[in-house]
Amino acid sequence: MLTLFGDIVSGNCYKAYLLLNLLEIDFKWVNVNVLEGEAATDEFRQMNPNAKIPLLQLDSGEYLSESNAILNYLAEGTEFLPKDRFLRAKVLEWQFFEQYSHEPYIAVARFINKYQGLPDERKAEYESKQPGGHKALSIMDARLESHDYLVGDQYTIADISLYAYTHVAEEGGFDLSHYPAIAAWFKRIESHPNHVGMSLKPEHQG
Amino acid sequence: MLTLFGDIVSGNCYKAYLLLNLLEIDFKWVNVNVLEGEAATDEFRQMNPNAKIPLLQLDSGEYLSESNAILNYLAEGTEFLPKDRFLRAKVLEWQFFEQYSHEPYIAVARFINKYQGLPDERKAEYESKQPGGHKALSIMDARLESHDYLVGDQYTIADISLYAYTHVAEEGGFDLSHYPAIAAWFKRIESHPNHVGMSLKPEHQG
Repeated sequence: MLTLFGDIVSGNCYKAYLLLNLLEIDFKWVNVNVLEGEAATDEFRQMNPNAKIPLLQLDSGEYLSESNAILNYLAEGTEFLPKDRFLRAKVLEWQFFEQYSHEPYIAVARFINKYQGLPDERKAEYESKQPGGHKALSIMDARLESHDYLVGDQYTIADISLYAYTHVAEEGGFDLSHYPAIAAWFKRIESHPNHVGMSLKPEHQG
Repeated sequence: MLTLFGDIVSGNCYKAYLLLNLLEIDFKWVNVNVLEGEAATDEFRQMNPNAKIPLLQLDSGEYLSESNAILNYLAEGTEFLPKDRFLRAKVLEWQFFEQYSHEPYIAVARFINKYQGLPDERKAEYESKQPGGHKALSIMDARLESHDYLVGDQYTIADISLYAYTHVAEEGGFDLSHYPAIAAWFKRIESHPNHVGMSLKPEHQG
């Protein structure tokens, strides 16, 4: 059985959690509390030298890190990853956009605000994250004004990657009422019969 | 014919330039000077709303951005991208590592130092990039101590993604003499008969 090491309050971990639920794949969840340094132990670094979650362990014992790499691995051969070469590349385009132009603004602002309580010494950094976050949201909203999903016309792992931190962007101070196309896209994603929110189901609680 | 919009001093653009040369694919190079704002014009934003290079235009007229998405598109079906599902995911793992845990430290420190002349007002930021850059280099070096390449035992686009900014990391103040396995890997990469350095060949100069 697959084992997923993570913390469900992390959007990066939630991505993999959501896809595993969408695909109805059985897996074991192992809680790793980053705030308490559980990803920075020597033991954890032997599994992932970059000391980050999520981390997926396969039946073979091999490890895979990086949330979006995990999504691509899990989605291979399913409806959530197109077969067409160009559309697959567009999925990756959105996922690299997410890691470089979205997450470092929106997820970091959310972390400072929600988990650190917006302390004075990080207030300037928090403020500095706002323009970049709004730029990312604007780019998404423009795409979603004329399309139901980010790539092609189907729900793909590109949507999962961007949904993860976007749907909690208000916790980072981003007012989503400016982005009606994003709000409509949330509803499409949340209407999937296997959708799960950002909290563990009883069977995954330790 | 494929068209690549870029600036060869950017490691992200160089990635695509290198792979196109390795694969002996004919392409048109269009120079975009980021320092002079050429990626931020309305005209360029119509091609890439994120206003970044590199940008690939296909024969169909469609556009693809994000350096690592471009590499995956171009490498499909070639020796530079494994067919095995797990190895493909490991390629992506290194590429997402590059964009999140390597480029924001090493490429940004290089930019501040080489292209901005390390101005006083960015000195603290430059210094703050050093620990993260060395962490990334240490993780690469540890992998390369016991393996010839980053994924499997062949030269893949994961190596191209990491080689791009690593081989010029000294321009960002990173002393590479601490990383002998990286130095040996540079030699393996540079020994490919179609290898090109970080400057345009005569036929791609405007």
